[in-house]
Amino acid sequence: MTQQGILIVLSGPSGTGKGTICQELLRSYPNLHYSISATTRPPRAGEINGVNYWFTSKDEFQRMIHDDDLLEWAEVYGNYYGTPCRYVKELLDSGRDVVLEIDTQGAMQVRGKFPQGVFVYIVPPSLEELAKRIHKRGTDTEESIKRRLSCATLEMNQVYSYNYVVVNDEVSNAVHKIEAIITAEKCNVLRNGHLIQQICKINPKE
Amino acid sequence: MTQQGILIVLSGPSGTGKGTICQELLRSYPNLHYSISATTRPPRAGEINGVNYWFTSKDEFQRMIHDDDLLEWAEVYGNYYGTPCRYVKELLDSGRDVVLEIDTQGAMQVRGKFPQGVFVYIVPPSLEELAKRIHKRGTDTEESIKRRLSCATLEMNQVYSYNYVVVNDEVSNAVHKIEAIITAEKCNVLRNGHLIQQICKINPKE
Repeated sequence: MTQQGILIVLSGPSGTGKGTICQELLRSYPNLHYSISATTRPPRAGEINGVNYWFTSKDEFQRMIHDDDLLEWAEVYGNYYGTPCRYVKELLDSGRDVVLEIDTQGAMQVRGKFPQGVFVYIVPPSLEELAKRIHKRGTDTEESIKRRLSCATLEMNQVYSYNYVVVNDEVSNAVHKIEAIITAEKCNVLRNGHLIQQICKINPKE
Repeated sequence: MTQQGILIVLSGPSGTGKGTICQELLRSYPNLHYSISATTRPPRAGEINGVNYWFTSKDEFQRMIHDDDLLEWAEVYGNYYGTPCRYVKELLDSGRDVVLEIDTQGAMQVRGKFPQGVFVYIVPPSLEELAKRIHKRGTDTEESIKRRLSCATLEMNQVYSYNYVVVNDEVSNAVHKIEAIITAEKCNVLRNGHLIQQICKINPKE
């Protein structure tokens, strides 16, 4: 029997670099799959169904909400976004690991439905460093940087609802730590009941 | 402030190879220290105080029991063996990790006193493989091998009192997994309260 894969949920304040970490993880860890979100917003030029999103009608999305087929969902400016359970469950059951990069509200919805998930919160080395990174990106006004930083401080109080905290000082360090977390979680006693039973069984042929 | 080190407790049925794993871990992971036991048995030829054991008088050992200065202890054939708290605590407080290789009874005593320890149970890939390894060693009679195997089956029920189970299929795999467990545990949210507080503090100079 294959051990069920691990669902890793990554969150963290905006600007922390969790997108880059996620891409790096997917590149270096072939058993890891990215969970594709479903959305009711129309595809933009170049976006492909089943690659960027599962593009879904409003009726279909509402049916998924009604049937409890979503790990988490939210409505943003009149469009729905969410994570369909079925796709994630199929991957996990086949022993593959799945990563979900979502905000804290989404993560807490997932936690309620799938407590055996592994919840990782990415933080910058310091708020000063976060400010520098947002400055460097050059897309925010001073006002918006200040707003982002005070949001980050508030958001970081959510860290205690996660299992692990990973500092993004260097992307390669953060990726190494998340890989270690996946390896360790696969050794968690609570995930290995079947293995232990199997080992304790003496083969009748011997 | 230095993050406190991790206390790793390794147990597993006799013949599983936990001694080899422990040596390999110490070799490849310089921050890890081996916890030296105290004993009242007299030193054998070549044994050095503070290397093989802390050789202790019966009076001194009984004082340690009385003062609750031992993480675990046992009396075997009239001699006392145990793990002094002070030495382990000093290492952990200075940020070093400590490994303890002890039986399940000792491990459960440690768990009672130091629940933040990380408890790892090493298992063979199968009981047949364990039998083969004991056979190969050539030090046991058929009768004693049978006894060892039935002890191993009984003992393995204790695995659920541990945090992690690591299969010793290959020593290098097992060592890699234990290293990952240490790295992951260092990211555990509950061990990082101080770090999180530090990050959330905005430097007044900025």
